[in-house]
Amino acid sequence: MSQPAPEKTSPIRVTHDGAVARVAFDEPERYNPLRGDVIDALHGALDVIAEDDTVRVVILEAEGKAFCAGHDLREVRGMDDREAHRELFDRCSAFMQRVVNLPQPVIARVQGIATAAGCQLVATADLAVAGRSARFATSGINLGLFCSTPAVAVSRVVPRKAALEMLFTGDFVDADEARRIGLVNHVVDDDALADTTDELAAKIAAKPPEAIQAGKALFYRQSSADLADAYADASRTMACNMDTDAAREGVDAFLEKRKPRW
Amino acid sequence: MSQPAPEKTSPIRVTHDGAVARVAFDEPERYNPLRGDVIDALHGALDVIAEDDTVRVVILEAEGKAFCAGHDLREVRGMDDREAHRELFDRCSAFMQRVVNLPQPVIARVQGIATAAGCQLVATADLAVAGRSARFATSGINLGLFCSTPAVAVSRVVPRKAALEMLFTGDFVDADEARRIGLVNHVVDDDALADTTDELAAKIAAKPPEAIQAGKALFYRQSSADLADAYADASRTMACNMDTDAAREGVDAFLEKRKPRW
Amino acid sequence: MSQPAPEKTSPIRVTHDGAVARVAFDEPERYNPLRGDVIDALHGALDVIAEDDTVRVVILEAEGKAFCAGHDLREVRGMDDREAHRELFDRCSAFMQRVVNLPQPVIARVQGIATAAGCQLVATADLAVAGRSARFATSGINLGLFCSTPAVAVSRVVPRKAALEMLFTGDFVDADEARRIGLVNHVVDDDALADTTDELAAKIAAKPPEAIQAGKALFYRQSSADLADAYADASRTMACNMDTDAAREGVDAFLEKRKPRW
Repeated sequence: MSQPAPEKTSPIRVTHDGAVARVAFDEPERYNPLRGDVIDALHGALDVIAEDDTVRVVILEAEGKAFCAGHDLREVRGMDDREAHRELFDRCSAFMQRVVNLPQPVIARVQGIATAAGCQLVATADLAVAGRSARFATSGINLGLFCSTPAVAVSRVVPRKAALEMLFTGDFVDADEARRIGLVNHVVDDDALADTTDELAAKIAAKPPEAIQAGKALFYRQSSADLADAYADASRTMACNMDTDAAREGVDAFLEKRKPRW
Repeated sequence: MSQPAPEKTSPIRVTHDGAVARVAFDEPERYNPLRGDVIDALHGALDVIAEDDTVRVVILEAEGKAFCAGHDLREVRGMDDREAHRELFDRCSAFMQRVVNLPQPVIARVQGIATAAGCQLVATADLAVAGRSARFATSGINLGLFCSTPAVAVSRVVPRKAALEMLFTGDFVDADEARRIGLVNHVVDDDALADTTDELAAKIAAKPPEAIQAGKALFYRQSSADLADAYADASRTMACNMDTDAAREGVDAFLEKRKPRW
Repeated sequence: MSQPAPEKTSPIRVTHDGAVARVAFDEPERYNPLRGDVIDALHGALDVIAEDDTVRVVILEAEGKAFCAGHDLREVRGMDDREAHRELFDRCSAFMQRVVNLPQPVIARVQGIATAAGCQLVATADLAVAGRSARFATSGINLGLFCSTPAVAVSRVVPRKAALEMLFTGDFVDADEARRIGLVNHVVDDDALADTTDELAAKIAAKPPEAIQAGKALFYRQSSADLADAYADASRTMACNMDTDAAREGVDAFLEKRKPRW
């Protein structure tokens, strides 16, 4: 499912840059749509990355006017029954959950518009960096199609009233407002976007991957648990983490005031 | 329950302005209290609106120094047993949940003080617009009565430490701080409050109501579900939404670069 | 467990200042570590305070370069099996939950760095006031030890992407950023920190303690309940609260436009 048929070019591009995997939308002239085959290609690429020990951080990136403009509406309109639509939305939702349950951290690098499922993807990524000209909208409602699946991701990172306003109005929010409401971590000048994102990725890639990965999984697991269960899980996770060579060396290095040899 | 007895004037005013229903407190000289009969009148008005296909958006509004000052303390004090108080707070809580489960979006338009259950009502509304001189407090604690039911609503839209400070101190927060902590969406000059709120309502009223209403219900339903269940629900909801004339026409119009004919 | 052995000095200092109990870290030269015996001393002090009707508010405070630098890494490293680590982290987690379920409100007064479990303690406190030079980090990842138990507390007060960035990078955030993301309530000049914190504590200590305590417990209880259950609990809690002399006197005083005689 994750491999494009041999006769066609893949709609995405995956490159490896040291410990960083760059998963790039590659249809800028089409506003980087999440067509069915793009979803499959992205999901497949993440499945491969999940098993690849050399990858420590993933950057989701794009070029052109759009980071990602969401579903391909021609494709959506071409399906004529509810089951076909549901299958498409389920497939997209499975991809979004693959981002969440990917072992490695995922950073969205947003350079243009991120609308509907594209905005959802930014919300879903663990971290996001935006260029100053990036803009965000859950714009489905403008077509009479409320962004229900994007609402799942957006409502988990954005305060309730801000999320509802985006969903009810379909209006764009600019990059600074996106940061204010928690949709992105940082806003930088457009020409600093690539470097800033790379620096963030490199910083995280320099940490012991077993600690980062156990930590990411714990973070999401405990987030909906009650407090006592969350602490029991976290305490167990942290004791396992301490029982690794990386943590022993890290703590020793700290106590000896030297850099860890990882 | 929703109809005032014939011999007395209703404590609220409901007017219809195109697709917008205005539900107005109408006792400005009393600071618009949530007396038992006011709660019943509001709840009854929303029950009628819920069944009224011509209403697409509700604005909760008021005039005078208070948007709403919460319960009528003389009424509360006049009840002498715990069961009577509990019945009153249950009735108020049922009204607040009626706002959440009303099909149509509800916008609070806040021009004065919003205290205790009045502040709760702002938190409960899907969206809120405040005039610059509006002020907000969960002030019950100043009377020795912790705002427990307001805490339910406030803690679902405001970050934890900000909510606890409001509840423990009873202090007012001004409109800008209310926006910073997510209690309102927008702050505008007092003399722009009516127009700004009307524009927001008109924008939402122009969207297909079936999409807005299914989306609002989904939003709250999924908010406390775990991620996989939330996505299953959202995907199903969105597939049903796509199977409506409004969405088909909306998508066609988008693809044909014209305005939808709704 | 809560009493230091007679031959050694306690690592903490508990003092009573009217209705305010000050629980102070007392090893500034060691950066106020959460060693096992410090955790036990703190937990024991809170157990005593929980039963002390004269205490209405607790301030957690420190002096020196660190508010609290988290676990003592020499101690952690000296334990050689996973069970010992888990027991330590469980003990620390139990202390953090003791802060949450303490009847009285707890204010963290943060004057220096708050790292790892120290940052967790700030997140766990009901309220926090920071001096302008305070800094915060979940820095365990820099040693290869992801701050899993701190993640439980931080993720409940800080928006998701901001929390993940702190956890993945270990970077410090300054006091203003800590306020922006909800980790502290207020930032003041360093030389105003003590007075500002005392004023906040005094304000809360002046409220009827039964209302504050029932309210704090309700706040946390309802925060993870669904909306209908949360309201049922809150309504019951508030009716019980109204059935106290403090609330009756508070409401009477309000209606008679005088100060309550509590």
